[in-house]
Amino acid sequence: MGTREIKVYKDLMGANEKWAAKTRSLLAERQLSMLNIIGSPGCGKTALLEKTAEVYGGRVRLAVLEGDVETTRDAERLDALKIPTSQLLTGGACHLEAKLVHHALVDLPLEEIDVVIVENVGNLVCPAEFDVGETAKVAVLSVTEGEDKPLKYPLLFHEAGAVVLSKTDLMPHLSFDMESCIDFVRRANASAPVFQLSARSGDGIDAWIDWLSGIAGKE
Amino acid sequence: MGTREIKVYKDLMGANEKWAAKTRSLLAERQLSMLNIIGSPGCGKTALLEKTAEVYGGRVRLAVLEGDVETTRDAERLDALKIPTSQLLTGGACHLEAKLVHHALVDLPLEEIDVVIVENVGNLVCPAEFDVGETAKVAVLSVTEGEDKPLKYPLLFHEAGAVVLSKTDLMPHLSFDMESCIDFVRRANASAPVFQLSARSGDGIDAWIDWLSGIAGKE
Repeated sequence: MGTREIKVYKDLMGANEKWAAKTRSLLAERQLSMLNIIGSPGCGKTALLEKTAEVYGGRVRLAVLEGDVETTRDAERLDALKIPTSQLLTGGACHLEAKLVHHALVDLPLEEIDVVIVENVGNLVCPAEFDVGETAKVAVLSVTEGEDKPLKYPLLFHEAGAVVLSKTDLMPHLSFDMESCIDFVRRANASAPVFQLSARSGDGIDAWIDWLSGIAGKE
Repeated sequence: MGTREIKVYKDLMGANEKWAAKTRSLLAERQLSMLNIIGSPGCGKTALLEKTAEVYGGRVRLAVLEGDVETTRDAERLDALKIPTSQLLTGGACHLEAKLVHHALVDLPLEEIDVVIVENVGNLVCPAEFDVGETAKVAVLSVTEGEDKPLKYPLLFHEAGAVVLSKTDLMPHLSFDMESCIDFVRRANASAPVFQLSARSGDGIDAWIDWLSGIAGKE
C-alpha cells in the first residue's frame, strides 16, 4: 500500500485578518503608512486631524478615511481643509472592520498620498479589537475623561503605537492627574510615546508631528 | 383524511430579551425602578451617581450595579458612599447584557431598595442596543464631547427616557453650542427631558432629582 496524501484545508485566518493583510500588502507595495486613530466620542480625534493637516499638510500628503456610525459631519470638516477624505459609515456598528477600510483605501488617489489616517468610530472598546491593516494604532484620550481610563479600557492602550492625551488646554479647569494617567498608560504599554497636546492652542503638536514624520519615513 | 395539526416552535424572543423580561417582572413585583445610565467613557456617569447619592440618598434607598470592562474603581467610589453596589465586569465586552444584570439584581438586598441604577460600560454605541430590563435609559453626554454627538450616535438619544448634558461648569472654557445640542437631541427624541447639570458645582441637580423621584414613584 502506498502512502496517500491527505490535503487539509483550513481557514487559518478570519475574514477580517485577510482583509487587513491585503491592506498591509498594498501599503508596503505603495510605500504608504496608515494610522488607525481610536478614542471616545468627542475626545478630539477630528480636531487633532485638522491641526495635523494645518501644521503638517504642507510637508506630507495626507488622506483621511473617516469612520462614523452616522452622518458625514467629520468628513466635511476635513474636506474643507482640502485633504482627500472618504466617509466610512458603519450603519450602526461600533467599530471599523478591515474590509470596509480596504475598499475605501483602494479608491483613494494613492499615487498622490504619503500617509493615510483612519479615524475610527468613537469608542474605547471594540475598535481596539479589530486590525484594519494599519501601520500603528493611536489611542486618543481627552484629559476631560479622567486619568483612570487606561486602567478601565486597557486593550486599546496596550495595542497603541502612540498615546495622545488631548485637550490639555482645559487642565487648569479639571482635577486631572497627569502623572497618574501616564503611570496607568505604562501599566498597559511599556514603550509607546505619550503626547500631551492641545489641538486648540497648538501646545505639544510639534512632538506629535515629529513622531508622525518617523512613521511616514519623512524625517 | 382528517386535518393534522402542525406544531410550530419558534424562538420568538432572543436570550437577551428573555432575561430583560424576567428583570422587568421582578421589578414590577417588588415595585422597584431601574435606570440604565449610558454615555461615553469619562462623561461623568459615576460623578452623577455620587452627587445623586449625596443629594437624594436620604430620601430614597438607592443601589448601584456598576458595569465596566475592567477594574472595580467605580464600584469602590460608590461603595465609599455607603450605597449597596455590585460590580459587573464584562470581560472585554463593550456593553451590559440582560442576563448579567439580572443575576446581579437578584443578589441585591431588594427589600431595602427603592431605585436601582445600572451604570453601563462607557460607550455611546452598543449599550443602546441592549435592553437590560430597565424602567428607562438615561443618556449622559458631557459638554466637553461637542454638541454634534446626538446626530452621530442617534440610537442612544432615541432610546433615552431622559438626557443629561453634564459638566456644564466647563462651558465657559468650551465652544459648545447648547442650543444646537438640544436641537440635535430633539431630532432623535421629541419628548425626553433634557437636564443641563454639573455634578461638581451642583447646578441643575435638583431638576434631575425631581425627575428621578417621578420615576421612583416617590414624588
